[in-house]
Amino acid sequence: MKIIVDAMGGDHAPQAPVMGAIQANREYGVNVVLVGIGEVILETLEKNGIKDLPAGVEIVHASQVVEMEDNPARAFRDKKDSSLTVGLTMLKNGEGDAFVSAGSTGALLSGATLVVKRIKGIRRAAMAPVVPSGSGGTVLIDCGANAECPPEYLLQFAYMGSYYAEHVLGRPSPKVGLLNIGVEPSKGTSLQTTVYPMLEEAGKAGRINFVGNIEAREAVEGAVDVLVSDGYSGNIFLKTMEGTGLFLAHNLKAMFKKNLITKLAAVLVSGGLKEFKKLMDAGEVGGTALLGISKPVIKAHGSSDDYAIKNAIRQARDYINADIISSIEANVDLMRLDGSTLKPKE
Amino acid sequence: MKIIVDAMGGDHAPQAPVMGAIQANREYGVNVVLVGIGEVILETLEKNGIKDLPAGVEIVHASQVVEMEDNPARAFRDKKDSSLTVGLTMLKNGEGDAFVSAGSTGALLSGATLVVKRIKGIRRAAMAPVVPSGSGGTVLIDCGANAECPPEYLLQFAYMGSYYAEHVLGRPSPKVGLLNIGVEPSKGTSLQTTVYPMLEEAGKAGRINFVGNIEAREAVEGAVDVLVSDGYSGNIFLKTMEGTGLFLAHNLKAMFKKNLITKLAAVLVSGGLKEFKKLMDAGEVGGTALLGISKPVIKAHGSSDDYAIKNAIRQARDYINADIISSIEANVDLMRLDGSTLKPKE
Repeated sequence: MKIIVDAMGGDHAPQAPVMGAIQANREYGVNVVLVGIGEVILETLEKNGIKDLPAGVEIVHASQVVEMEDNPARAFRDKKDSSLTVGLTMLKNGEGDAFVSAGSTGALLSGATLVVKRIKGIRRAAMAPVVPSGSGGTVLIDCGANAECPPEYLLQFAYMGSYYAEHVLGRPSPKVGLLNIGVEPSKGTSLQTTVYPMLEEAGKAGRINFVGNIEAREAVEGAVDVLVSDGYSGNIFLKTMEGTGLFLAHNLKAMFKKNLITKLAAVLVSGGLKEFKKLMDAGEVGGTALLGISKPVIKAHGSSDDYAIKNAIRQARDYINADIISSIEANVDLMRLDGSTLKPKE
Repeated sequence: MKIIVDAMGGDHAPQAPVMGAIQANREYGVNVVLVGIGEVILETLEKNGIKDLPAGVEIVHASQVVEMEDNPARAFRDKKDSSLTVGLTMLKNGEGDAFVSAGSTGALLSGATLVVKRIKGIRRAAMAPVVPSGSGGTVLIDCGANAECPPEYLLQFAYMGSYYAEHVLGRPSPKVGLLNIGVEPSKGTSLQTTVYPMLEEAGKAGRINFVGNIEAREAVEGAVDVLVSDGYSGNIFLKTMEGTGLFLAHNLKAMFKKNLITKLAAVLVSGGLKEFKKLMDAGEVGGTALLGISKPVIKAHGSSDDYAIKNAIRQARDYINADIISSIEANVDLMRLDGSTLKPKE
């Protein structure tokens, strides 16, 4: 197994991706390919006391870097020798089994879609982060790749999210819910009322474990393993969660900083407080899978440190091992509307 | 000023609405009319040691009660002698200046729309709660009354929310933002991209203080005074906030209950912790105004105790005093699309 890592992507590049990859190689025994400006990667390794390239670590030179200012839709084409485009092209050509990047989300999504391509029959790739919830994490699909979705997209998201939860996260018969504003099948916009019977049918046929509409509040409590949503609403859900966590963290900090007595209290619960803060910080657990792409692509958070990159690489490993892309390919006909008139638009 | 109170609505009726109204009468000097089953109201007063009706408190008998099982769209018609229908009819006939109820949201919304009616030219009434945020509370409009909205609704929500924030909450030149998944005008679904230039135009003309698209995370931080949204997304925002608060409260509790030392810490911060918990509990601050109805109607939270009802009555008083309904009526032509072809459907 060989995992291609974008050495130039993210707020803490090259340090975080380079050293995250080194740690993943050490810890998980996976082969890694660092793609980026050769001398910069070598410098980073040296700075971290690594003089000889460890076994299973390769470097592939790419002279350009995709910046946040670049047009996300065109970056992979405008910068053909960027770590992004070179890495994705290697993935496409089978010179690696997965691609991990902490760079621009939009550029990665466009690049993955147009270089690596979608699975045949899948209308759109979706961003599927694992968001913290009462059940230890819920797959949210989609969280913003597709603002506006016809029903067929959501049907496909449900299947892809279910396969991911089952085979990558190890949840047997994952509960799939449709994000909605009430539990009755009549609730929501025409999108939800149209998708509901499709998911219900898939559930009755035993293809997914559809448990019905789920309100946002119950979703946070962990009522489902997979939360199906259009990208606009999914993004509102994800960002509201993040914002509320930060807002409450801020107020909690103020509470503990009030006076000497409260500061003492903070010391007494310092261990638990650390865990609690992590819970509030975490908009997402690990990296976000781009489901629907024909090979595994993982978007690590832009602010990833080396530990986070290492985890994203582990996630890529699990994604490869689970081989859910084959499952999606084998079942893609079930995810299409009869006599589908919805042609994918590029 | 006379405020009509639904004595039978809410989880803690009749105790909460009856005693909340009595307290509001005492504290704010407003006249209140308790509408509900006469003997039940009298019993409740007696149980609380009130033998003679205080000055400024009236009782109006209504023999029926709208239950949660009743069809929300038809309840006001099916139960013509319910506290809901009698109270709303009194409001319509000018026998009171506002109506406050903690009963069924759907029944109240339908009843208010069809008995009291909307302001002429306003397409839909919206639910506008004040949600906790970094700036001390943000008016969210709409939070679920209208799952699916054409652009004109959102234009009207923006104006109504702005008037409410300015005149009822006392925010000078309130910042109005459009809930979205990015700040660029091109972001979101076709709804947001269509509404953006309309709000921009209203902003440029100095009619509202439109500050652009607002992501959910910044909205929670308190970036705006008014957050404009379709009801579906607004509900996702509100319920995610509530859910995240409850989820974190649960984890915080577990942290403090771990052992004797952490329990001591809890005692040391008990004062602040109480405030903090309130912050996490509060999905909404006070009652929710039904904006767009031709007279002030306030929905108090179903779980309201007497203190919450008292506050909802104070809010109704402020709503009446602010007289924003006149402002909406005077400016309603600015809130309509040119040559509007959108006919309101009942």
